Amino acid sequence: MQGGLECMSEELKRSLDLSSKQVDDFIAKLFSEAGQRDQDLWKASMHLLSAGGKRLRPFLVLTSCELVGGNPGKAIPLAAAIELVHNFTLVHDDIMDQDHLRRGVPTVHKLYGTPMAILAGDTLFAKAYEAALVAAEDVSPKRLLRSVEIITKTTIEICQGQALDMQFEQRSKVSEREYMEMIAKKTAALMVAASEIGAVVGGGTPREINRLRRAMMASGLAFQMVDDVLGLSADERRLGKPIGSDLREGKRTLITIHGLGRAGTMEKDLIFRALGNRDATFEEIREAVTLLTSLGAVDYVSAKAAAYNEKAKGELRKFPASPPRERLLDLLDYVVARDR
Amino acid sequence: MQGGLECMSEELKRSLDLSSKQVDDFIAKLFSEAGQRDQDLWKASMHLLSAGGKRLRPFLVLTSCELVGGNPGKAIPLAAAIELVHNFTLVHDDIMDQDHLRRGVPTVHKLYGTPMAILAGDTLFAKAYEAALVAAEDVSPKRLLRSVEIITKTTIEICQGQALDMQFEQRSKVSEREYMEMIAKKTAALMVAASEIGAVVGGGTPREINRLRRAMMASGLAFQMVDDVLGLSADERRLGKPIGSDLREGKRTLITIHGLGRAGTMEKDLIFRALGNRDATFEEIREAVTLLTSLGAVDYVSAKAAAYNEKAKGELRKFPASPPRERLLDLLDYVVARDR
Repeated sequence: MQGGLECMSEELKRSLDLSSKQVDDFIAKLFSEAGQRDQDLWKASMHLLSAGGKRLRPFLVLTSCELVGGNPGKAIPLAAAIELVHNFTLVHDDIMDQDHLRRGVPTVHKLYGTPMAILAGDTLFAKAYEAALVAAEDVSPKRLLRSVEIITKTTIEICQGQALDMQFEQRSKVSEREYMEMIAKKTAALMVAASEIGAVVGGGTPREINRLRRAMMASGLAFQMVDDVLGLSADERRLGKPIGSDLREGKRTLITIHGLGRAGTMEKDLIFRALGNRDATFEEIREAVTLLTSLGAVDYVSAKAAAYNEKAKGELRKFPASPPRERLLDLLDYVVARDR
Repeated sequence: MQGGLECMSEELKRSLDLSSKQVDDFIAKLFSEAGQRDQDLWKASMHLLSAGGKRLRPFLVLTSCELVGGNPGKAIPLAAAIELVHNFTLVHDDIMDQDHLRRGVPTVHKLYGTPMAILAGDTLFAKAYEAALVAAEDVSPKRLLRSVEIITKTTIEICQGQALDMQFEQRSKVSEREYMEMIAKKTAALMVAASEIGAVVGGGTPREINRLRRAMMASGLAFQMVDDVLGLSADERRLGKPIGSDLREGKRTLITIHGLGRAGTMEKDLIFRALGNRDATFEEIREAVTLLTSLGAVDYVSAKAAAYNEKAKGELRKFPASPPRERLLDLLDYVVARDR
């Protein structure tokens, strides 16, 4: 694990380290059968995974499995599948958004070129199913097919969310409701899927599964809002990517949506000098950030993220107290308190 | 169905029409639940499918199922899954190869831009699994999981094949053996998978499945060799894409590999004026094609394709005579006799 975990309990840190290691070992094995010739494809596919990442989603799979009384060891292949889907979407998103840096290293298409990065993403997506199918050793066909169905449905939602995100860049006005729909699909859906698959594999009841779904939808929305705030205000080196890149790319975050709603004509001008302007100077980005902050947009989004976090915790607290429940509650707090 | 089917028996034509219609209807339903907002993504995803295509692979699924005594109606979702995988790889390949035309229409990235085309390919790939999972209504979990495994393993092979194909463009020398490995993965693997899945769903024995695998591997290799020949010599409008684009893109086909092996220094020069030169004139392309033909490379590849076709038919003839066997034999002959 890299830094940024100061605001995490010792127990959560230990548990996250363990699930990361289990899933990373599993994925490494999945890529160990590589032939000699396709090394570039393998290296490009593993690049982002090797660069770190918090592995929050595998943790959600394993801990949700444990929460409903299942054996998390049986869910490792599915935890790996979810992490592979996550990385596949990141590799392709970085091409689409022309991002050059992620997790502190150059993006796959910057290092290997766009064709190889497209192919690496496709490989990661296929490997996600390969990972999932390994679970057949320990998981009933019915639960496994249900898990594969969740992965599939969720990936389609993520694609829809990314399509909305790109469309928003071309529009002059985006509503808060539209933004929430977009991040529900683009970000929260995979966190919901992670928890749901863990609970399905662990034999959770429909009531337990729905409770987890509601909790992780709320937490996933909070996660994206905090991401948007960090994208404007975090320490660049800790964040692993340039500050303000959302602005440059014209991404509609709740911060810009709320800020634009409160801005006067001249203030709007100032925001649009940065928003969607890939050639914006550092100074123009800083001015837009300062303005959005003074318009109360950052506070508004942070408060909203905190409210969603409370909602998520409320749902989780409906489960009887247990070590996995406490770890999940800790994770939810980390999601809104993290600095990268 | 479009033209190009003159060299097909009436029985095969009817059967191919029927399986195309069944699979197209199934896919249309799969895309009918679209929300309002993501229309661009849906249109981009359906673009290539709507432009036609021969639907050979779904036919292989359904007819292989019937050949081993199964009910092909139960295999329709998996036939659709294979066609969706095929289209996903075409959409992404066209981006990587910078192709502008396919099936007589502009490629997805030309019409919708590269980001939306990446996303459309991803959506088609996910939809392939969505399609496959519909089979759960009629197919046992064990057979369905095996089919999903075949789809997954095959897609990884296709990615490896495409990676090899791209690497070859950068190399001065590629051997015939390397070319055969590349097309086995890039092209033949999906035709093998189509037949295998049909046989798995139809309850074929391991011996029957292996026989079909051998037949379709040979036929798939022949298919790609004929494709390479057509890419140099077909009627451009019937083919639906520009003649010589393989040469311009620097693709190593068996024609160029064999031709370069027989060419003298000055002849090599002439070939390399076209090969890998995206700015090659029409005249330079024509001269290279004429030279490769006079070096016997086109005849060599055509003869090799015919030999693989005979091998494939020999494997198929080990099945007892039956209407599906005759249709498959007709299809194999069509693969090497087609003009587009």
